Formats: sequence, C-alpha cells, structure tokens
Amino acid sequence: MSQLEATQKRLITLFEEALEEQIVGWARWPATLSAACRHGLFGGGKRVRPLLSLMAAEAVGGRAEDALPWAIAVEMIHTYSLVHDDLPAMDDDDVRRGRPTCHVAFGEANAILAGDALLTEAFAVVAGAPWPAARTVQLAALLGEAAGGSGMVGGQVLDMAGGLDTVAALERMQALKTGALIRAAAEGGAIAAGGAFEQVVAVRRCGAALGLLFQITDDLLDRQQDDSDIGKNVLDVLDMSEAVARRDVVAAEAKGTLAPLGDSGAGLAALVDAITTRDR
Amino acid sequence: MSQLEATQKRLITLFEEALEEQIVGWARWPATLSAACRHGLFGGGKRVRPLLSLMAAEAVGGRAEDALPWAIAVEMIHTYSLVHDDLPAMDDDDVRRGRPTCHVAFGEANAILAGDALLTEAFAVVAGAPWPAARTVQLAALLGEAAGGSGMVGGQVLDMAGGLDTVAALERMQALKTGALIRAAAEGGAIAAGGAFEQVVAVRRCGAALGLLFQITDDLLDRQQDDSDIGKNVLDVLDMSEAVARRDVVAAEAKGTLAPLGDSGAGLAALVDAITTRDR
Repeated sequence: MSQLEATQKRLITLFEEALEEQIVGWARWPATLSAACRHGLFGGGKRVRPLLSLMAAEAVGGRAEDALPWAIAVEMIHTYSLVHDDLPAMDDDDVRRGRPTCHVAFGEANAILAGDALLTEAFAVVAGAPWPAARTVQLAALLGEAAGGSGMVGGQVLDMAGGLDTVAALERMQALKTGALIRAAAEGGAIAAGGAFEQVVAVRRCGAALGLLFQITDDLLDRQQDDSDIGKNVLDVLDMSEAVARRDVVAAEAKGTLAPLGDSGAGLAALVDAITTRDR
Repeated sequence: MSQLEATQKRLITLFEEALEEQIVGWARWPATLSAACRHGLFGGGKRVRPLLSLMAAEAVGGRAEDALPWAIAVEMIHTYSLVHDDLPAMDDDDVRRGRPTCHVAFGEANAILAGDALLTEAFAVVAGAPWPAARTVQLAALLGEAAGGSGMVGGQVLDMAGGLDTVAALERMQALKTGALIRAAAEGGAIAAGGAFEQVVAVRRCGAALGLLFQITDDLLDRQQDDSDIGKNVLDVLDMSEAVARRDVVAAEAKGTLAPLGDSGAGLAALVDAITTRDR
C-alpha cells in the first residue's frame, strides 16, 4: 500500500465513523426521510470531497479531526445535489453506482424532500461544529457561496441551458457545477483546522485546480467506458491529445500551488498525481 | 389605520427595501435562476414571517433593523418550501396567488434548482449578517433546526404520508410543517435584536402558539372559501364550534406567553388578536 493509500484509508475510516455519529439525531426524523437521506449518503461514493477536506487540514499542519464537521457538511451538499440531479425533471437517472436512485427507491416527492433535508442539514452541521464562532461563520459563508447560485446550483442551471461549445464556456460551467464545491472542500478543510491565511490561499488554489483536473479525468474515463455518454464532455470540444495535454497543464498548476505548504503539502501532491493517472 | 396596521406598514416597507438590497448580488447568477428565485420571492406573499421577526425584535426592546437579515432568511426558506411544494411530484399546483407557479413559469428543473438556491441563500444571508459571531452561529443553528428533518421538511414528509386522523397527529404534523418556521421567525428576531434570555423564551413560546393559531385560522378560512380543499384541515377532525373553541384557547395561550415582555409585548398581543379575527 502506498503512503497515499494508507493516508486515504485512515482518513476515510475517520470520516465514516464521524458521519455515523453525526446523524444519530436523524432517529427523531420521520423514518422515510432518514432512510431516504441515508440511501443517498451511503451509496458507495468515493468520498473524494471529504478526503480532500481532511488532507487539506493536515496539509496546513492541522488535525484532520478538526475538519470532520466540514467534511461531513460538504459530503451532504454533494449527496443532495446527486439526489436532485437524478430526478426525472433533471437527468432522469434510475440507477447510480449500481443501486436504484433515491426517487426510484422512495418516490419523487421523498427524494425532493430528502435533498432539501440534506442541504439544510449540511448547514446545521457547520453551525453545530465546535469551532471558534468566527471560524464557524466563515465556513458557513463559504458553504453558502460554493453551493448556491454563484456556485454549484448556478453551474447546474448553466449545464441544463446548454450551448457550451467552447473550452472556456465548458470550463466555466464545470468550475461552478463541480469545481466550486471541490475547491471549498479543500479551502474549508484548511480553515477548519486553523490554517494560516497564506496556507489557506494555497489550498484554495490547489482545490480549484483539482476540481478542474478531476472533471477532465472524469470526462476522459467516461468516454473510454461509454460512448453513449450524453453529458457535456471536454472531448466534445477538444480531441484526445489536446485533452490529455490540458489535463497535464492543470495537474502541474495544481502541484505548483502547493509550494507555500512545504513538506506538509506532499500528501496533496500525491493526490494530484493519483487523480491525473486514475483509471476509475 | 390602527396602531398595528401602522406598525405593519412601517416594518414591511423596511423589509422590502432590505430584501431588494440583499439580493443585488443575484445579478451575477445565471439569469434564469435569479428570475425564478425572484418569481417566488416577490409573489405577493403577506410577509407574515418577516413581520413577526421584526415585531419580535421590537418586543424585546431591540431594533427591527437588527433582525432584517433573519427576516430575509426566514422568508427565503418559506419561499423555497412553496416552490418545492408546488412541484408536480408534490402538491402539483399550477397557480399560486393568481400567478403561475415557479415550475409552470420556468420549467420543473429550474423550479427545483431555484428552491435549492433559495434554501442555500437563506443560510448565506445569516452567515453574512453583521451580528456578533456567536449570535450568527446561534441563528444558523436555529434555522437549520426549524427548516430541516426535525422541522419543516419532516412535517412535509408526515403530511404526505397521511393517516392524520386525530387532533394530536394533525397538530404534531402542523407544528413541524408550518409551526417550526413561524416559531423560529419570532425567536430568531428576538435573538437577532439582542433580547435577554427570558425575553427570547417568551417570544419563542408566543411564536409556537402563533404558528398553531395561524394554522387553525387558515383552516377555518379555507373551508369557508373552498369546499374542494383537499389538504388536511382541522375541520376533518373537529366540528366548527370545537375548532373555534380550540382557536380561542390557543389565542389566549399566545397572549399569556407575552407577560414577561411587559408593555413592549403590546404589538405582538395586537398581532395575536388580528390573526384570531382575520378574514383573509
């Protein structure tokens, strides 16, 4: 097992335990609602965003434990966005990671409400976290910015509106739809763990590059595996060799942002490499 | 014009101006998204919740101005809940207050996303408000509790699940679905304006009673105006004279909670009377 893999395993174990503990209170919710929320939240996701939050905490010399509420909040936002995106009125997907989507399993109305509950709960988790109050306020504002109309939801509206026929238009949409939350996952992890200003800025820049890198590699993998992909893909606007070159430029950018972190940035640098060469 | 009417006019003017100022930043959102959000937010609502927040601020001897971000956040939560409730998969309403509902005007996907954006923005407004950080954290937690699975969304799930054939079951559902946010509107207004603990408790109790009172009077009005009403109504489980008696008990409770506020509670007492005798 590589050092990166060992780190990932350690942090994801930490995350899963904290997540289960965080949602103990859902036992007081109507049973259908908590079941629908759990269905989304424990759907076999790779936990990319929480992992990034916790690695960012350690990259600024802080404790991953201090970033756990942030990692949980970001994963709840990501999960709600998938639940709503899968709805018949949106992407109309019946299956996600080999399981029925939330609206197939629980009905459309419950899926809408489960998404709403997860979104609300993300902010409740931030508000209830044991950070100094000023840090909590900063993180709540960051989550609102990343998830809202000038972030993830705005990107989803642009995606559905179509007309993304240049690299610039495509990357702008993706920077909002998926990039904003990935960047915030990293930045917030650094803030939650008490990173200094220049460290937080470095992690934020790394997170922005990682979001783009993740999207490009996702697009490359999608096209290798499934020609029927109907989503917008970088390969709609670039040929394969151009897209690979773009990937490598972005990967180099991502690693370049880490210089201010010194040795403690090694984990994030290894993550950049792993995403660049990933095959799933 | 009664003193209550003059107060309402003053506070609603204050609210509408602050709301317009608050959403100036939506100009940077995709145009469809901000238009869909505005459609919901400026749909001719009576601004009951914001008014209650601002009156609560004054009832604890504070300034209504200090409660404006809270009033805006609560109205955004209320608006998103209407946008999502009107969706075809939920109540399937095409018209609200004489205008096409959000999904009729902008399409179902945009209505889902507009609701998501309004919900997110509510927390962003709280996070960005100029309160002391500890107060902001307290209010963000209150909003999360009132709007989420153990509040508004939980109540909506119970409502859809049906089987509400006793006064207790019906009032429990309503306490969550509509009561939690009305109570929080009042309580948060008192907190935002710097109310003392015992004042906040009094306003919270008044808000809880007002939520129930508002629901009962709503039910009574609905049945007078429209026999085809298919929603759950207190008149499904009580006859008219029993429902009127229940209303009067709850109104007396609501006024009884105001004793700790002394003279400054007079505005809220007048609001209780006005809701008890309202004819629209």
